[in-house]
Amino acid sequence: MNTSPLFSLDDLLKLYIQKFRDVKLSDTNIIADKPIYYFISNEGKRIRPLLLLAACNMFEGDMDKALNPAFGIQMFHNFTLVHDDIMDKADIRRNKPTVHKKYGESNAIISGDLMMIYAYDHLSKIDNSQLSEVLSNFNITAGKIVEGQQMDLDFETRNDVGLDEYIKMICYKTSVLLAESLRIGASVANASDLNKELIYNFGINLGLSFQIKDDWLDAFGTGERFGKKIGGDIIQNKKTMLFVKAWELADSSAKEKIKSLMDEEDENLKIKNMLALYSELGVNNLIEELMKEYFYKGIDFLEKIQVDEERKKPLLQFANKIYYRDN
Amino acid sequence: MNTSPLFSLDDLLKLYIQKFRDVKLSDTNIIADKPIYYFISNEGKRIRPLLLLAACNMFEGDMDKALNPAFGIQMFHNFTLVHDDIMDKADIRRNKPTVHKKYGESNAIISGDLMMIYAYDHLSKIDNSQLSEVLSNFNITAGKIVEGQQMDLDFETRNDVGLDEYIKMICYKTSVLLAESLRIGASVANASDLNKELIYNFGINLGLSFQIKDDWLDAFGTGERFGKKIGGDIIQNKKTMLFVKAWELADSSAKEKIKSLMDEEDENLKIKNMLALYSELGVNNLIEELMKEYFYKGIDFLEKIQVDEERKKPLLQFANKIYYRDN
Repeated sequence: MNTSPLFSLDDLLKLYIQKFRDVKLSDTNIIADKPIYYFISNEGKRIRPLLLLAACNMFEGDMDKALNPAFGIQMFHNFTLVHDDIMDKADIRRNKPTVHKKYGESNAIISGDLMMIYAYDHLSKIDNSQLSEVLSNFNITAGKIVEGQQMDLDFETRNDVGLDEYIKMICYKTSVLLAESLRIGASVANASDLNKELIYNFGINLGLSFQIKDDWLDAFGTGERFGKKIGGDIIQNKKTMLFVKAWELADSSAKEKIKSLMDEEDENLKIKNMLALYSELGVNNLIEELMKEYFYKGIDFLEKIQVDEERKKPLLQFANKIYYRDN
Repeated sequence: MNTSPLFSLDDLLKLYIQKFRDVKLSDTNIIADKPIYYFISNEGKRIRPLLLLAACNMFEGDMDKALNPAFGIQMFHNFTLVHDDIMDKADIRRNKPTVHKKYGESNAIISGDLMMIYAYDHLSKIDNSQLSEVLSNFNITAGKIVEGQQMDLDFETRNDVGLDEYIKMICYKTSVLLAESLRIGASVANASDLNKELIYNFGINLGLSFQIKDDWLDAFGTGERFGKKIGGDIIQNKKTMLFVKAWELADSSAKEKIKSLMDEEDENLKIKNMLALYSELGVNNLIEELMKEYFYKGIDFLEKIQVDEERKKPLLQFANKIYYRDN
């Protein structure tokens, strides 16, 4: 018999927003907090804190104890966005100027640094009995996220990125934090080691499927992409799953075509011709297959978790929402 | 009767170097670790880890347990240097190209981020019983350090920086990490709350004296400054204790002189005339007074610490070394 109430995703999001709507970041960092308030006033879907809360709730944990780590995880994610935007020279995020555009690069470096400190501070507010294990896992994850960004940067100057390398990069850059969010939620709820491992692997595969879908949507999406333009990755010559797969499948003449398209200055022509090339090479279908494969692998892990099926529903719904999204 | 051996500063440094000489930073961050190895192969005096180890040793703590946090503190300090060098557009540190000069700015941002993660990782290796308290204190300190850098940046475009503001900035940017290093060492050794407070305050005052001396040496020093040029702060129009005090004491005609000297392009002339102005205003003596005041205030706190006088000797020696240094 379950005693803890099972919350819907909407309720979990409400819980989170209610707690942190008017959050006061610090008593001391009067100047450096400003760009952070600017950034968090315009947050996205809060996928990571939601995953953490949902995992905790699934294992009937105390939701009060999950809120601070959820905020910590979101802060860590925000830190990566602020610093990545500097490196990617991105001007706009979520329809607003990026932090470095608005406050200058030095202030953006500082804000990102401070966000990471706040992330650790909120993460450290979990019970003593779990603190050491959670931090030790989280630090490995954090290191991978940074390495993922480093790989992504290095890929910019390379065309011959292999599929395995690419999967590793998106696993590090995206999946591990989703998986870690879930595992921390499970830890807060004192889940068994097996369940923590299963939920972590659910997150890894869901994350891969999520990121591949993201790449796919950028090229073939029809929905309105929040602050992003369809074909943006193609314009920027970004190494996406589609590019990597296309390069892998291309013979030398197709490779020449890709290379010359990368220099094409007419953006609409560039997008149109690259998409045509992707279709010609059959990339579209292959990518959809891969996306599906990771999604169902993830679902398998979720199914193996040893709790009442009923309690898995919010996370299952979450996974479906991510998989079937059109933006 | 003391049972734990008391180590000399040299022995503590040896202990530290021996442990971390061939440190392997990670199994996973193959690319992003590279600039960090470059940076730590050329480290400075390792003041912070030494303070941590000396504090632990003073309170007869287990030195094995102090080594990881000592490395963590040093990593945190290194992270601040790497990111500050980007913001300060510094080309050289310790006679070698700065990380961003050698590896580019994006890689330097990433390396700094990763250094912070390693800092937390090593700090988190202290005993469970102290972990929560240490991290909670450390996070406040870390936030102050970042705010200190933010203040320093903001001072660049201002001449009217007040003495109190300046003291707050150097307290945040320099003192709090020295003080925190000492407090963590004391925590590892299970020192009493009173002793932890006393050693923290010793560190704050020693740090202020240290930083004021640094400003002073840049202008009036005679020793060889490792990788720094005498008068460098003056050339860069840096807001140092000397500048702040001079501005405070200057009448409107002296203020005009300072302003016009800030635009002087002949570097030697600029240094010579600014130093003459400092002397004229009596800044030199006032600064020496202040330096002395903080130093003795620090020593007072050290004296109040409730352990055998004998065990305070290494830290006292350390303080004297810092105070009487000529470079």
